[in-house]
Amino acid sequence: MATKIGIREVAKAAGVSVTTVSHALNDATSSRVNAQTQEHVRAVARDLGYAPNRMASGLRNQRSQILGLVSDEITTTPFAGAMIRGAQDAAYERGYVLMVVNSGLDPELENREIRTLQQHQVDGIVYARMYHQGVSLPEELGTLPTVLLDAVTADRSISSVVPDEVAAAETAVGTLIAAGHTRIGMLNNTDDIPATHGRLQGYRNALERHGIGFDPDLVTTGVAETPAGREAGLELLRRPDRPTGLFCFSDRVAMGAYQAAAALGLRIPEDVSIVGTDNLELIAAALWPGLTTVALPHYEMGRWAVTRLLDDIEGPAAAPVQAVLSCPLIERGSVGPPPG
Amino acid sequence: MATKIGIREVAKAAGVSVTTVSHALNDATSSRVNAQTQEHVRAVARDLGYAPNRMASGLRNQRSQILGLVSDEITTTPFAGAMIRGAQDAAYERGYVLMVVNSGLDPELENREIRTLQQHQVDGIVYARMYHQGVSLPEELGTLPTVLLDAVTADRSISSVVPDEVAAAETAVGTLIAAGHTRIGMLNNTDDIPATHGRLQGYRNALERHGIGFDPDLVTTGVAETPAGREAGLELLRRPDRPTGLFCFSDRVAMGAYQAAAALGLRIPEDVSIVGTDNLELIAAALWPGLTTVALPHYEMGRWAVTRLLDDIEGPAAAPVQAVLSCPLIERGSVGPPPG
Repeated sequence: MATKIGIREVAKAAGVSVTTVSHALNDATSSRVNAQTQEHVRAVARDLGYAPNRMASGLRNQRSQILGLVSDEITTTPFAGAMIRGAQDAAYERGYVLMVVNSGLDPELENREIRTLQQHQVDGIVYARMYHQGVSLPEELGTLPTVLLDAVTADRSISSVVPDEVAAAETAVGTLIAAGHTRIGMLNNTDDIPATHGRLQGYRNALERHGIGFDPDLVTTGVAETPAGREAGLELLRRPDRPTGLFCFSDRVAMGAYQAAAALGLRIPEDVSIVGTDNLELIAAALWPGLTTVALPHYEMGRWAVTRLLDDIEGPAAAPVQAVLSCPLIERGSVGPPPG
Repeated sequence: MATKIGIREVAKAAGVSVTTVSHALNDATSSRVNAQTQEHVRAVARDLGYAPNRMASGLRNQRSQILGLVSDEITTTPFAGAMIRGAQDAAYERGYVLMVVNSGLDPELENREIRTLQQHQVDGIVYARMYHQGVSLPEELGTLPTVLLDAVTADRSISSVVPDEVAAAETAVGTLIAAGHTRIGMLNNTDDIPATHGRLQGYRNALERHGIGFDPDLVTTGVAETPAGREAGLELLRRPDRPTGLFCFSDRVAMGAYQAAAALGLRIPEDVSIVGTDNLELIAAALWPGLTTVALPHYEMGRWAVTRLLDDIEGPAAAPVQAVLSCPLIERGSVGPPPG
């Protein structure tokens, strides 16, 4: 029951704002939209086959039209906003409101929040983590429709959406190989999480695909933050046989690699090319030159989770789906041919 | 009715976790805490004068124990998390759950979200902006107890909390003056917002207090992002009589000033000292050397707003309060004496 035509498409086709479409379609006699515009919008919506689920479903059942998003920790991550925005946009287009609660990794608070959402008859819950990880669902969720965002359960019994960690690294390293690099370092993370293992696998896959041998000495591990990235960058770039390209676990790590290159008098990309992961714009677009990076699809994952949840809520029962979303390359200015 | 002793203080004094305190105090016969521990915790709470408002108020009235936080835009700001966390911690300690909705600056969505919160009988609302600004309250809020977070209304009829923009700049510029600088540039923002005007005023105040003349040529304006900060930094630092200290509107702007200094071969802090504003750790702690900056009190503002809201909800009627919180200096490594 995925809706291909959303309120935004109707607005675009009708040449009016989303707000106007909403008034025209949802208010029996809208005081905010004149009758002619209302008729026009409704005709466009009919032509496009747009069926606002809010109206249709309201006739059939007693839904609250509220979804809950339960997240672990939104304080320390800059990605929460994009995930929540994606989830909210998808909810909005289908007539639902999203309420966000944030447990801060405190199980007692999380359970209390989930009970509160249940008391208020939310129709379903997006259970979110702020980076890709395995989780156990809290028992409090019971039989409430649930979709996992940036997380999976071991038994894969719940629909989930995560980024394709392996392909992200293949894309990043493939970009360096395509520019001519054959000595490519990887600044990896130390945490035992899917991103660490998946991205190392993708790095190895890309090398192997192009007949480049894997050299474990070119892989460093550290905390996925800038100071550790700087140390790792200094370690790799000080070697006589230094790599000419660096694939970094995150954009924050890449910022450290930039600092290491500057300290050693190496120019980017003339002397060393650098690719990050995340597309954290606050850093990737701010670095000089701009950082070429693979984007984790936080907004798209948020959208996917809510769309799937609403399909579960509104549609017939369906088997759980484990979605793995691709990570597009965002080209800026940090990749060039190797020196010499 | 501000609670000085919170659940965390009880937990610390009793030598148990916050979760255990919660079970011991709130469950009549808790299956998760043994009777001896429960008695111990209750005795400690009594000794400290801790009165869990959730229990007390539950006897007196019919509250939902839910607060709503309505924010404009959490996608594009890295500060939302700290504000929400501060608000949530304060709510949690007094037995409330916080639900966050995010309008993305769409008035129709905002009104729908507020109506939904009202339908679910929230006890009050924190109306938040992601940077300090003047606002008009949506009519939908009606008579619901409301506190403004990082915002004020023109008529000052609603309690509010904002940072002290003037004092923040006085602190930042005073730090440069204390290190011996007398030629101090300011990289300001172009937006017509309280921070732009307040920080310029604070810069002027600090100079005047120390008998340093104001030179309008040392003040640049631009977008408060890194690339514009780089341009402004290049403009100021290329001059023969270049300033030896720079006060930046934000840490993102300061990142641009670092890039300008590096491009001109100037070392920080040996050749130029730089102070930021925000304490956006993702950048301030990642720059090399670390950025000395004044911290905007996002967490503390979140706490203040909820504490005030709960005092309004639970206590007797009181006149609105306009709180202005101070911005502490966070010293890292970007300030030293002027060269020569």
